[in-house]
Amino acid sequence: MEHPVSLYNSLSRKKEAFKPINPPHVGLYVCGPTVYGDPHLGHARPYITFDLLRRYFKHLGYKVRYVRNITDVGHLLNDADEGEDKIAKKARLEELEPMEVVHFYTRRFHDAMHKLNNLPPDIEPSASGHIIEQIQVIEAIIKSGYAYETQGSVYFDVVKYNQDHPYGILSGRKVEELMANTRELAGQDEKNNPVDFALWKKAKPEHIMRWPSPWSDGFPGWHLECTAMSTKYLGNHFDIHGGGMDLQFPHHEAEIAQSVGSCGHQPCNFWMHNNLITIQGQKMGKSLGNFITLDELFSGNHEKLEQAYDPQTVRFYILQAHYRSTLDFSNDALKAAEKGLDRLRKSLKTLEDLEASQSSEIDLGSWKKKIYTALNDDLNSPIAISHLFEGVKWINQAHEGQLKISESDLKDLKAFMPLMVTDVLGLVAEPEENHGSDAGLDQGLMDLILNLRKQAKDNKDWTTADLIRDALSGMGIQVKDTKDGSTWEKN
Amino acid sequence: MEHPVSLYNSLSRKKEAFKPINPPHVGLYVCGPTVYGDPHLGHARPYITFDLLRRYFKHLGYKVRYVRNITDVGHLLNDADEGEDKIAKKARLEELEPMEVVHFYTRRFHDAMHKLNNLPPDIEPSASGHIIEQIQVIEAIIKSGYAYETQGSVYFDVVKYNQDHPYGILSGRKVEELMANTRELAGQDEKNNPVDFALWKKAKPEHIMRWPSPWSDGFPGWHLECTAMSTKYLGNHFDIHGGGMDLQFPHHEAEIAQSVGSCGHQPCNFWMHNNLITIQGQKMGKSLGNFITLDELFSGNHEKLEQAYDPQTVRFYILQAHYRSTLDFSNDALKAAEKGLDRLRKSLKTLEDLEASQSSEIDLGSWKKKIYTALNDDLNSPIAISHLFEGVKWINQAHEGQLKISESDLKDLKAFMPLMVTDVLGLVAEPEENHGSDAGLDQGLMDLILNLRKQAKDNKDWTTADLIRDALSGMGIQVKDTKDGSTWEKN
Repeated sequence: MEHPVSLYNSLSRKKEAFKPINPPHVGLYVCGPTVYGDPHLGHARPYITFDLLRRYFKHLGYKVRYVRNITDVGHLLNDADEGEDKIAKKARLEELEPMEVVHFYTRRFHDAMHKLNNLPPDIEPSASGHIIEQIQVIEAIIKSGYAYETQGSVYFDVVKYNQDHPYGILSGRKVEELMANTRELAGQDEKNNPVDFALWKKAKPEHIMRWPSPWSDGFPGWHLECTAMSTKYLGNHFDIHGGGMDLQFPHHEAEIAQSVGSCGHQPCNFWMHNNLITIQGQKMGKSLGNFITLDELFSGNHEKLEQAYDPQTVRFYILQAHYRSTLDFSNDALKAAEKGLDRLRKSLKTLEDLEASQSSEIDLGSWKKKIYTALNDDLNSPIAISHLFEGVKWINQAHEGQLKISESDLKDLKAFMPLMVTDVLGLVAEPEENHGSDAGLDQGLMDLILNLRKQAKDNKDWTTADLIRDALSGMGIQVKDTKDGSTWEKN
Repeated sequence: MEHPVSLYNSLSRKKEAFKPINPPHVGLYVCGPTVYGDPHLGHARPYITFDLLRRYFKHLGYKVRYVRNITDVGHLLNDADEGEDKIAKKARLEELEPMEVVHFYTRRFHDAMHKLNNLPPDIEPSASGHIIEQIQVIEAIIKSGYAYETQGSVYFDVVKYNQDHPYGILSGRKVEELMANTRELAGQDEKNNPVDFALWKKAKPEHIMRWPSPWSDGFPGWHLECTAMSTKYLGNHFDIHGGGMDLQFPHHEAEIAQSVGSCGHQPCNFWMHNNLITIQGQKMGKSLGNFITLDELFSGNHEKLEQAYDPQTVRFYILQAHYRSTLDFSNDALKAAEKGLDRLRKSLKTLEDLEASQSSEIDLGSWKKKIYTALNDDLNSPIAISHLFEGVKWINQAHEGQLKISESDLKDLKAFMPLMVTDVLGLVAEPEENHGSDAGLDQGLMDLILNLRKQAKDNKDWTTADLIRDALSGMGIQVKDTKDGSTWEKN
């Protein structure tokens, strides 16, 4: 199997033809959340991006194994290997056992991902569940000579590694510059060099999350878990490693060093990074305190929000930008996405009942090709979506009798549009309020009401007709009278 | 804080007053599923039973930490420590990495629990994520002299243990009888005695799930994980350990031996066991092949099912039997539960709009006391429910003007009924089809229709009134005219 998919490889800094190592299998590892708070808009982007990648690969016939981790230990409050564990701090603040914090926020993360219609990963390993595997990686790195133990902790020797292998190969940073720019922090003195990073940290007496190791009772460094878990479930050399651009340095740079240091080669062929969501031009992040949680977005309950946004609107908003572009949050952009999604959904509905003409005035083949070309070109979802809106225009024109679509083209279109919209882009075709068993009931009640309204009009009973119009309007229901009868929609 | 709750302790074989070790905290550990297949009706019972216990304790003001594990390794196909790992076998059959099987069925288990309205446990640890902790327990048992290593595997020395501590204390079995009744199976010869059980098994070369240990690359015995994880998250001595009666032997018996063997005492004060769900008198179990999965129950898609059953019906059916009674599956029993639940829900709805009288003809205080007495008496939910139906009768009689309830009693009743039904019993007050954002829309549309109907009647426009009646009836909507106006309900 071969598809002309090209992906931008952060490592080579160019687009490269994607060829799986063991076709049709594709191994995909994506860095998951540190579960110490509610997921925010910034989290939605990587998981929607790589959900799209996985869905598109699946559509092309690849068998994807998607591994996304849960960071439940070892992610310290700053990246310089000092400071408190993020989860332990939250647990202390909330007086919970750290694992209660972990499970609470993991459930909330899962709920938000489900609402965004991100398919769950095939394997979702947790850092605390893979301590042994992480110890094994450390032992291999020590054996290669790129790590040293000091006072019960183990550090990766970046300076020594950099003599043999380029540290900074992914992020473009230079060890010399990093050395010059690193402030000495308290407790850093057990490192040979400030650029070195922790593989294992000896736990202080009050530290709850701790495990025995050859060096001390302690816990693994944050970067280590992804090396241990990606290679455990995808092999030492897999296809794609993804994550947000903010993880390139130091996290992914450290992962490369750990892989080269433990098994002699890069962990994967492709490194993919989505760009960030900004808010007034600044990165949105938990540590910056300027984030909007997904729950707040879905409920509208945040001072920066002018309204609530459906999870599907958020998904569409993110898909409408290329994953490598920055995307600035604004109410206007989300409202535009809401309208666009609504148009797209309505056209799918219109398409269902569209009737064929004798001939076609559209070139379906080249249109479909343009959509595939866009997605093959580094997953260019905004271009693909703009072409889909060409299809929306056709559907609406054909519905109004201004465009002919033949039987065979119509059949093709009726299969292709929903496939792209729901299967590949992962957009739910129906807005939330029309879900479930009540949709039929609404329609039934509305049919009755519109029937009574027509009867009133026929009888010139304007009082009743007005009563109905006002009552429906009060419920936010708009009635449109067309030649085929009346239709209705709810705001 | 002290409540007169008594619970049947399987260990003492009698009801005992429950006193938490560290009030108001209560530590509760319940054996979770082995995730290699869809959860079935038999799984619903323990998780509903202990969800009720937790909800009731929370209602009484206790702070419960509820830990329920996920068995994702080490549960062999027979209890004699031989045979294939259940998950590895499923993975081999489905050609998946074992962890894909684990995460797939964990998600499906969570979905089913959510549908049954079981609150998620506070901590849900997995066996594979606690290998180090299990190794530590083995080391402690070896140190106490109750375990021995042979050919890379470690076994618990039941015979030696039984010389110092009664093995069989929970299940009432005798080691001598067990010895006489145990068949020698292939590969058992590395045990000193056939009653010994595995703490650590050396992995065969083809075994995927394996970890290093002081004895061999291998995996823990099934019984071990619950000892390691319950004590890790609840301490060496906690309040309550629960599970299905089928787990008393060998699983819980082994847990007691492991705890005594590693830290010198019983792990918990109370052992609670729910009885089994039978089908035509036989235990329902995956290994017996006579099970009905929860998904099948919810969809009606099984030859033994005459219809689909709402998850809340299943919950009510289980709560209507005391957890220590056997419960035989039958369509009639589930249909009766459906009807009972419907009556209960309707009364809650009626209660909302009920108006007070000047005086009361009910004794609310002693009625409430009876409900608490039932729940305090070893969680006797069927008795509590039967008293709740006394309340249902009152509500219906008051609604029909045949019973007086005073303002203050009505206020109390309006608070107490939903509290018991939804918070404590965990029953969702509204049937599924009335959930979601459409409920308000339906009500708005129906208000308009009933208004139009009234207007037609007032105008003696019988044609329109009949049209409305017939149309609603066609949608399964029944309108009732009462002195307070018209109400409606959908079949």
